[in-house]
Parts: sequence; structure tokens; C-alpha cells
Amino acid sequence: MTALSELDTPAALIDLGRMQRNIARMQKRMNDLGVRFRPHVKTSKSLPVVQAQMDAGAAGITVSTLKEAEQFFAQGMTDILYAVCVSPSKLDAVLALRRQGADLKIITDSVQGAQAIAEFGRRHDEVFEVWIEIDVDGHRSGIEPTDEVLLQVGRALHDGGMKLGGVMTHAGASYDCQSETQLVAMAEQERSRCVQAAQRLREAGLPCPVVSVGSTPTALSAQMLQGVTEVRAGVYVFFDLVMHNVGVCTLDEIALGVLTTVIGHQQNKGWAIVDAGWMAMSRDRGTQGRPKDYGYGQVCTEDGQPLTGYQMTGANQEHGIVALAAGVDAQIATRFPVGSRLLILPNHACATAAQHPGYKVLDKQGRIEDWPRFYGW
Amino acid sequence: MTALSELDTPAALIDLGRMQRNIARMQKRMNDLGVRFRPHVKTSKSLPVVQAQMDAGAAGITVSTLKEAEQFFAQGMTDILYAVCVSPSKLDAVLALRRQGADLKIITDSVQGAQAIAEFGRRHDEVFEVWIEIDVDGHRSGIEPTDEVLLQVGRALHDGGMKLGGVMTHAGASYDCQSETQLVAMAEQERSRCVQAAQRLREAGLPCPVVSVGSTPTALSAQMLQGVTEVRAGVYVFFDLVMHNVGVCTLDEIALGVLTTVIGHQQNKGWAIVDAGWMAMSRDRGTQGRPKDYGYGQVCTEDGQPLTGYQMTGANQEHGIVALAAGVDAQIATRFPVGSRLLILPNHACATAAQHPGYKVLDKQGRIEDWPRFYGW
Repeated sequence: MTALSELDTPAALIDLGRMQRNIARMQKRMNDLGVRFRPHVKTSKSLPVVQAQMDAGAAGITVSTLKEAEQFFAQGMTDILYAVCVSPSKLDAVLALRRQGADLKIITDSVQGAQAIAEFGRRHDEVFEVWIEIDVDGHRSGIEPTDEVLLQVGRALHDGGMKLGGVMTHAGASYDCQSETQLVAMAEQERSRCVQAAQRLREAGLPCPVVSVGSTPTALSAQMLQGVTEVRAGVYVFFDLVMHNVGVCTLDEIALGVLTTVIGHQQNKGWAIVDAGWMAMSRDRGTQGRPKDYGYGQVCTEDGQPLTGYQMTGANQEHGIVALAAGVDAQIATRFPVGSRLLILPNHACATAAQHPGYKVLDKQGRIEDWPRFYGW
Repeated sequence: MTALSELDTPAALIDLGRMQRNIARMQKRMNDLGVRFRPHVKTSKSLPVVQAQMDAGAAGITVSTLKEAEQFFAQGMTDILYAVCVSPSKLDAVLALRRQGADLKIITDSVQGAQAIAEFGRRHDEVFEVWIEIDVDGHRSGIEPTDEVLLQVGRALHDGGMKLGGVMTHAGASYDCQSETQLVAMAEQERSRCVQAAQRLREAGLPCPVVSVGSTPTALSAQMLQGVTEVRAGVYVFFDLVMHNVGVCTLDEIALGVLTTVIGHQQNKGWAIVDAGWMAMSRDRGTQGRPKDYGYGQVCTEDGQPLTGYQMTGANQEHGIVALAAGVDAQIATRFPVGSRLLILPNHACATAAQHPGYKVLDKQGRIEDWPRFYGW
């Protein structure tokens, strides 16, 4: 049995108890709100994590790449939403997965895209199920609910012989919320605008059985979800400092950290140098310019107790700088001697996890298990 | 034979001709300056890239992780410098590689570190070759040449029975240079301070055969390297927008780009949405706050012609936003229709390459070859 103290560093460490509580909290919320829950597997890209989400009651998965669809379909998961507008060149791969039995849904937000899907489908005698992406907050993709393009896309799909399965949206602007009032309002904005889009399609005589919304902040803040059939969220499974800033998790709910070892000091600057740089943390500076800027991460003891004020203040490829964010700790070399170990909580769990070929998973008995993850496209 | 137009996106594309010219330019410079050259393989982590560097005349390799040492040693490369201060917990792995025949050198910059190495070496009857890291610019690790700790570390190693192989430094501050005058001065600062450290050790009766310096900007700017025995550099093999800002490469010398496909638009904002987000580009914003900020990358045509003014202005996990950096292109949807393809030059080649399981390599005849790369620790 490997002990925490024997792990090579840097390592992506999952606190299993925290992860399980995060999963249970979200699933209970969705059950109470009366909607299906379709977790986004792009955060973990790891079967045991996703299996735990399914075991808790999730209905289907959301993916950001066809690689994720292929990997999880190979593990027996069939109900899959590919939640990035499909490029025409990927339709061959989508078709191959559907022909193997995957109930893979795709999305589009343009007439060009819808026509390309419909033409490809007819040419290959395949009725693709397509959902239309709705823009509820101006942050990225999608069609505004009142835009005339919405009905054009709906008709291009439906009249083109495809299955118009529904509408979906992601309120990415929720990451900018800074109070519970803002979060509740953003969740309602996401719900109401996506439902409005569905109603417009239905009023035009088009089918729209599914209304799918979601982001971790809105999923955890919605007061009611009338008209919504399912919710999607990803990062809640681990949480991170961005989510802590948004206000939807406490520091001790963050289930992912990077274990690192002190390899040197610059005493006059108050720096400890550690063997986790941006290769282990990612370059994500998602808390920059936010209520609390955590640099490249919050420093904790090896067993996860936050060391208030200590951050990873700088990062090179395989070097991190650990220091007091404000002021100089003249005792840094005796506080964190060469060989001592720290845990760094990440700004953005999706980005940090992506840097690692696998997770080290720490259970309540102090045992360590290896969970693989994949990457690429 | 795969054509460029048939590649799945996103993909990390190497322009082979540019890469070969970058390698030849650096090696010729080092030959002319009369020093050995030890490329840093952390940039590519790919055997064919490193083999091309060796074939051009490189002497040994530099690594940032023991995984790199293990992988390249398995491919027959024995002269290896692990250029991150070794943590005591990694000495078992260092010993294993040396016992297998690797001429693996390690570094330290502290008495604590030196003592740990010497004690471990004596306990295992191994004479580790250790170089001392010198701080020439205050940017990260190392001992200042005039610091009394330098001789203490030298003695702890030498008197402790280890082989004191030399001194090494990396002038990371050269990335902040903004003129040729500054670059030349920084190269001379790196050289002179590292040579000074070597002289202090020798004057104290300690051996110091190797004087190893390097960064891509200083390697390409040094006017003379008296007293230096070898130079190290990594990112020059691909170059990137950070190096272009520093002034050591032109845009058309950048040999790495990310191929991407347009998947949608927000016409009123002048946005094209592409299927390369931060997962394909990395979160590196290395040109932020620099003479020219390229956002997440410079947009080019599929075959690499820069589209002046167009940048990846935003990135989510698998979505990129391509737009004019200044102003709104109302014709964005007709200029870059759904399905059209673009090449994005990266801010930081090391970070962007790290996001990809392999490279697609385009030769002068338009043929595509697959080159693998590895990751993790």
C-alpha cells in the first residue's frame, strides 16, 4: 500500500471523500429540482470519477470532444451529448459512433451547420439527433432566443430530415457572478431564456422535447427549473479556487490538489521553490482580477490544511514559487525545508487535471489508488 | 498519404522546414562561438525532434523531468543534465538511471540539497555528478556568484565524496528584454556571472570543469562566450510569439501552430468560433503586457500566412474566439465560413505542445508524418 508520503511529486491528488460529497450534493439538488442531471466529463476524463457520478443517479454524460465520447462509449455509456458545435469534418466520426450503437447527440447554432448536418445525414441515410445551442448571456456560442435564425436552424434540421431533439445552453457568464443574488438571477436568466427558445420552436410547429441548461454556478443556485428537462455541470465534481471565488464552494470542498516537494529557496525574497510549475498546475490564472487572486494556487499542508496567505506566486515549466502573497516570510527555509511537501489547490480544476496522465486518489483510510485519465482529441 | 486538408482538428502542426532551419541556425551559432550545445528537450518531448538536434551536432541533452531522462535514455541518449534542483525523494530514480548506464548529471543550489545528495550517494556507494545552479538575474533559483553559500555547497559536494562537475545557469530574465542592446547585455551578464562563480570555486581549490549557460534569447544574442563550455536552449526549435516579441525570431520562423476548424459565428460581435480552445493552445498568455499582445495566438491561413490583426481573443476548454484584435469584422462569417480552417501561432510553444499527444509534421512536399510526444512525470 502506497502512503501519501511515498508518492512521487508532482501528482494530481483527489480527496475521495470530498469528491463523493460534491457528487452527492449536486445529484440531490437536481433530484429535488425535478430534473435529470448529465455531468460534463471533460473535467475528469476518468472512468472511476464518471462511474461515481452515474452511480449517484446521473442520466447520460456531456462531452467536449469526440475522444471523450469514444472512450466513455467503449466503457458502456451510450447516452452522450457532444456539447460543442460539430464541424462538418467530424460528422464521419459521429456517424461511426452512432452506427456502433452510441446514442450520440450533436449540436449546432447556425444555418450553415444545420444544413451540413442534414446533407451529410441524408447522404449516409442517418437521422442525426441535433440540439440547437442557445445564447443566454452573450459569453460565447449559441443563438439568442429571439433571433429569427433560431427558427431557420430548426427548420433546416427538421425539414432536412434530422431529429430536432431540443435546445441547450451554458451560462458561462455565471463565472463572473460575485454574490448569491447575482447567481440566482443568472440561473433564472439561463432557465427562462432557454425555455423561451424551446417555446418559440414549439409555437412554430417544431419539436423540442429537451431543454438542457447548466454550469456549476447556476446548477447550484437555481431556485426552480420549470420547463427545463436536464441540467449539465462539470467542475463541481472537484471544485476549485475560481468556484470558491464565485461563492459556490468552501475551500475544504475542493477535492483536487497538486502534491509537490520543496527543492530550494531564495531566503531574502521569502521564496520556497517547489517541483510543481505550470506543467503541473496549468497556466490557468482564473482568479486573476477576481475578488481574491490566488496566483497559481492556494498552498496547503501535505494533508490539505490551507496555509493562509501562502500562494504559488509564480510558475515556470517545472518550478513553482511558493511565498506569502503579501510580504516576505524570512523564515521560509525553516518553515518549508528542502524535501518537505505541500498541496496546492488549483485555480481551475479542468485545466490542472488536464496536465496529468492520472490521479492519485486518497480515501478516508489514507490508502492511495491510481485512477487513469486520457487526453488529446 | 494524408494531406493537410484531411487532418482532424485541433492538431499541433510542425513545419519541418522551419524547424530544421531553426536547428541549423542555433547549432551554427554555437559552433562559431566555440561551445558545445545541449538542447533542452522539455519543449518537444519527441524523439524525432531531438534526433534532428543531435544529428545537427548537439552534445547531450537537458531535461526538466526524470521522465524525459528515462524516455531519451531508453532511446540511446546517455549524456543528460537534469536541470531542476533534485529533491531528495527523486535520488532513488536518479541512481537507477545511472546504474543502467545513463551519464545523468543533477543540480543543487543549497547546502541542504548538497548534503542530502552526498549522504544518499555515500549510502549507496555512488558518486553522483552534481552541478551547482547559479543565479545570474534574480528570476528564479540558484546561488548568486558572490554568495558565501556557493563555496559551502561546493565543499559539501566535493568533501562529501561527490563529483563537482561544474556550474550552470539560466537567464530567464532574458524573456523580458525588449531590444538587441538589452539582449546582448543580458547574454554577457549570464556569461560573466556564471564564469565568475566557476572562478570562485576554482580559487577555493574546488573543481569546476563545466560552465553551462543558456536561454533561447541569450544563446542567440551572445557576442562571445569566453569561459563558457556549453550552452543550453529549448524553445528555439519551434520559436513562438513570446520569442518574436523578444526579437529573436520572425513570424515566419515559428515552426509550431495549431490547426483548427471554424464551427460557428457571432456575427454582430465579429467573432468566428473555432474548435481549438485552451485545451489545444494552453492557457499561456505570455504576450500579455508585452510590446504586442497576441491574445491566445496569431491567426494564419491554413498554410501559415499570417492574417494581420486577427487573433484568438478568447478561449474556453474546446472553443476559441477568432476576431480582429481592434474593431469588429462584420464580414467574419463570409471570410471564415463554418468548416474553413485556420492555423494559430502560439504564445509559448512549450506550453502549447504540452497539450497534444503528438505532432503532425508537414514536410516541403506537403506530406504529413506523425511524431509522438509524451507527458507526465
